[in-house]
Amino acid sequence: MKPTIVKSLIVVATLAVLSSSLARAEDPLGSWNDGPARQAILEFVKATTTEGSPQFVTPETRVATFDQDGTLWVEHPKYTQVMYCLDRVGVLVKEKPELKDREPFKTVLSGNRAALAELSMKDQQEIFVAALTGMSVDKFNAEVKKWLASARDSRWKRPYTELTYQPMQEILRYLRANGFKTYIVTGGGQDFVRVFAEQTYGVPPEQVVGSVGATKYGYDKNGKPMLTKEPKLLLNDNLGGKPEGIHLMIGRRPFAAFGNSTGDRQMLEYTKAGDGARLAMLVLHDDVEREYAYGPAQGLPNTKVGTFTQALYDEAKKNGWIVISMKNDWKKIFAFQP
Amino acid sequence: MKPTIVKSLIVVATLAVLSSSLARAEDPLGSWNDGPARQAILEFVKATTTEGSPQFVTPETRVATFDQDGTLWVEHPKYTQVMYCLDRVGVLVKEKPELKDREPFKTVLSGNRAALAELSMKDQQEIFVAALTGMSVDKFNAEVKKWLASARDSRWKRPYTELTYQPMQEILRYLRANGFKTYIVTGGGQDFVRVFAEQTYGVPPEQVVGSVGATKYGYDKNGKPMLTKEPKLLLNDNLGGKPEGIHLMIGRRPFAAFGNSTGDRQMLEYTKAGDGARLAMLVLHDDVEREYAYGPAQGLPNTKVGTFTQALYDEAKKNGWIVISMKNDWKKIFAFQP
Repeated sequence: MKPTIVKSLIVVATLAVLSSSLARAEDPLGSWNDGPARQAILEFVKATTTEGSPQFVTPETRVATFDQDGTLWVEHPKYTQVMYCLDRVGVLVKEKPELKDREPFKTVLSGNRAALAELSMKDQQEIFVAALTGMSVDKFNAEVKKWLASARDSRWKRPYTELTYQPMQEILRYLRANGFKTYIVTGGGQDFVRVFAEQTYGVPPEQVVGSVGATKYGYDKNGKPMLTKEPKLLLNDNLGGKPEGIHLMIGRRPFAAFGNSTGDRQMLEYTKAGDGARLAMLVLHDDVEREYAYGPAQGLPNTKVGTFTQALYDEAKKNGWIVISMKNDWKKIFAFQP
Repeated sequence: MKPTIVKSLIVVATLAVLSSSLARAEDPLGSWNDGPARQAILEFVKATTTEGSPQFVTPETRVATFDQDGTLWVEHPKYTQVMYCLDRVGVLVKEKPELKDREPFKTVLSGNRAALAELSMKDQQEIFVAALTGMSVDKFNAEVKKWLASARDSRWKRPYTELTYQPMQEILRYLRANGFKTYIVTGGGQDFVRVFAEQTYGVPPEQVVGSVGATKYGYDKNGKPMLTKEPKLLLNDNLGGKPEGIHLMIGRRPFAAFGNSTGDRQMLEYTKAGDGARLAMLVLHDDVEREYAYGPAQGLPNTKVGTFTQALYDEAKKNGWIVISMKNDWKKIFAFQP
C-alpha cells in the first residue's frame, strides 16, 4: 500500500473509534433497552431542564430521591444491613462472652437458618440494637467499613457494594449531569448507608436520608468530644416516614422518586402530588435468571423482603407511575457483567 | 485644556474609579476592621483551600456552620421566633375564641410586658406548641412568610430579615466563594428559619439545621398528601444538641463554626476537635450604641437571651477560639446603614 493510503486508513480507523466512543458517551442510559421506562426518564429530564419549557425547574430545586434496598442494589435473600447485624453478633460475643448463651444471640451463633428465620420482631430488634448502637459514631463507621471490605454476597461472591444496578447508577449520573441533587431515602440505617454511599453511588453523607437514631454528645476518657449512637429511634424512614424524612432532611418535595416496594409508596405519592412534571418509578424484580423474582405483583413469588403488592402495581398503572421491568428494560444488571 | 489633556484626565479618572471598585471587589471582608478576627478568617481560608497546603481540605468536605440568633441576626430584646409566636396568639384566638380567656393566652393578649416576662417555661411551651404545630407544613410556611413581610422590629422599624449582620453575610459569601457549604445550625425552629434562609442568607432549606419536631404524613379532605407538624420534639438543637444535629443532618464535622452564646459551646468544641485547620468564632455583643451589649462576659450586662458567660469567654481565649468584638471588629453592623 502507498503510504498515503495507509495514512488515510489510519485516519478512518481513528475516526471510527472516536465516533463509536462518542456514541457511547452520548447515551447516558446505555444499559437501558428502548421502551416506555427509558423514554419516561428522557422526557422528564427534557421537560424539567429545557429553558422556556412550561415545566422547567430551577436548578436549586431539582431534587431526586432513591430508595436503596432493591432499588439501587440487591436486597435478597436478606437486606445487607441485616447481614451486617448477624455477622456483628460474632464480634459482640467476643467483647461480651455472657451473650453467647443468651437468646436471640445463641440462635444467631448456631447458624441454624430455620431457627433464624423464625426469630420474632422483638428478637430481631434486640440484635439490631446490640449491633448498631451503644458505640461511638466513629467506631461504628470504622466497623462497617471493615466489614464491607471483607463480606461477600452468597450468590455472586462479591462485595455488596458491587451489587448495585448499573441502569440505576446511570440514572443517578444522568440526573446529576442535568443539575439534579440525588438523595438516597432508605428504610435502612442512615449512618450505615452513609459509610459507602459517596464511593458507591456518588451520593455524599448529607444527601443520605434513612432510618435514624438519636446520638448523644459526650466525651471519651481523654476528654475528646464524641457522639454515641443511642437506642432511640428518631425516624423510621419507611412508608409515611419517607415523606417525613424528606421534609426533615431536605425540606423540598422531590421532582423524581424511585422505589421498588410498598415501603416506597408514600414517597412516590408525595412526589407526584407536586405541580409540574414529576417522575415516579418502581423497579419490579421479575428476572429470576439474572437477579431475583418476587412480588407478589403480577403473579411473582411472594416475599417479606421488598414486597411489591398487586395493589401497588395497580396504583402505579392508574397514576402514571412507571414500572421498570428488570427483565425487559435492563440490558445489563451489574457493571461486572459482560 | 487641550483635548489630549482632557482625554488623559478622563482616562486617569476612569482608572481611579475602576481601581477603587476593583479594590472593593477584591476585599471580601470589607465591613471588617483589620485585626485578629479578620486575619483569622483569611488565614483559615488560605490554609484550607490552597492546594499543596498541609491543611488543604477537599472541596466536598468543606463545611461551615453558623448559629443564627445573635450570630447572623439580632436576637434582642426577644428571639424573632418568639415574637412570631406571640403575634400568632392573636390569630389563634380568632380561630379558637375559647382560648381568649385561658392562660397563658390571656396574658399574651393583654400586652402586659411585666406579666409576659414572668410566664413560666411551661406556659411559654404551650404558646410555642399552639403557634408552631397542629397545622400543615404548607400552611405554616405561608403564615411565617406573611408575618415576615409585615412584622417590624421595635427599634429599627425594619423587617427582621434586614437585621442581619453585614460582616457575617460577608463571611457566608466568602466561604461559599471558596468552596465551603454554609449551614445554619440554630436553636430556633428548622421549619421557621427555612422559610427565609435562602433569600436572606443564600442558605437553601436542606442546609438549615434547627430544633425540629416530627411531622405526620396524611391526607387533606381532598385526598391530597400533606405533612402535619406534630408537637413532638425530635431534636433540641442547642448545647450538645448542636453536634447531634450536625451529625443527623450533615454527617460531617465542620471545619469552621460560628456562634455567640453558651448554646454554641459544644458546636465549637466539636469543630475544633477535628484534625487540621479548624476555625471557631464567637460574636460578642459589646456595642450598645450600634446594636446591643450583653454578656455577662467581660462585665457586660447579664441576659437570658443569648447568654455569653465569662467561663465561655475564658475557654475561648484558652483554646484559640476567636472572640469577635462587634464594637471593634465591625466597621458596619447592618447593610442599610451608611
